[in-house]
Amino acid sequence: MGGSSSPCASCKLLRRRCAKDCIFAPYFPPDDPHKFAIVHKVFGASNISKMLQELPIQQRTDAVNSLVYEANARMRDPVYGCVGAISYLQDQVSQLEMQLAMAQAEILCIQMQQQQPSPNNSNYLPEIQIDNNSLQQYLSFTNSSTSSVISVMQDPFEY
Amino acid sequence: MGGSSSPCASCKLLRRRCAKDCIFAPYFPPDDPHKFAIVHKVFGASNISKMLQELPIQQRTDAVNSLVYEANARMRDPVYGCVGAISYLQDQVSQLEMQLAMAQAEILCIQMQQQQPSPNNSNYLPEIQIDNNSLQQYLSFTNSSTSSVISVMQDPFEY
Repeated sequence: MGGSSSPCASCKLLRRRCAKDCIFAPYFPPDDPHKFAIVHKVFGASNISKMLQELPIQQRTDAVNSLVYEANARMRDPVYGCVGAISYLQDQVSQLEMQLAMAQAEILCIQMQQQQPSPNNSNYLPEIQIDNNSLQQYLSFTNSSTSSVISVMQDPFEY
Repeated sequence: MGGSSSPCASCKLLRRRCAKDCIFAPYFPPDDPHKFAIVHKVFGASNISKMLQELPIQQRTDAVNSLVYEANARMRDPVYGCVGAISYLQDQVSQLEMQLAMAQAEILCIQMQQQQPSPNNSNYLPEIQIDNNSLQQYLSFTNSSTSSVISVMQDPFEY
């Protein structure tokens, strides 16, 4: 019974005896049957059991939570699952990098305008100095590129 | 044989006859045994078969590619898998939002300084106008917050 009075959600679904040392019991309590049902549907009980056995006990809660997250994402989006979220976030990063580069370029433009001697004010000296980091960041931005789900899957670990 | 001369990578690994209408054959060719081995280890052949059967044929290639991506991520990071990538990207989005808000605030500051009458140049009128969008974006940024793997898993679809 995994230490509790009723079998854990996993053993209940799999219709088997819940042993005292059941590997699922600490993470799949009987009052939340959906949590196990969803990871079982996507990963399978046998694979989850193997994955948990290969991890130290203190990392198993995080592993179960990430498996539940992935399984939910796969249920919600059967084609792309979690990869859809990764693609969306990569696009967001690209857009923000572009907006930031434009803002930094705008700052440089204003500062350079201020430093140029004006016809009406040849003695005007602004207090703000040109920020070389802005220019460097602006120049390095040209190496970035936009992404899509397809490119995410072609370059699996380019994030 | 899935239409080819040798059994597909899936049937070879599962040691079964590769039928002409094998559901795996179009996506797991015999010359790439690792591709099937990794998704089989994480999701199980039976689950992959069910997932593919539930999808229209034209979406199955993308589904297989996203499953391979997820399985690779899980092999690389057995605790967090793809969720580690999502967390990393969410942190990157938060940092970029903060940098963008700071850059936009800097633009506003410079523009407001330019509009203030200077003791040396009371007639200096800059050409650049204050951008109200920058202020709005800066103010709306205060609703954003930093994220972590834990918060990703607590709010599964907050991306």
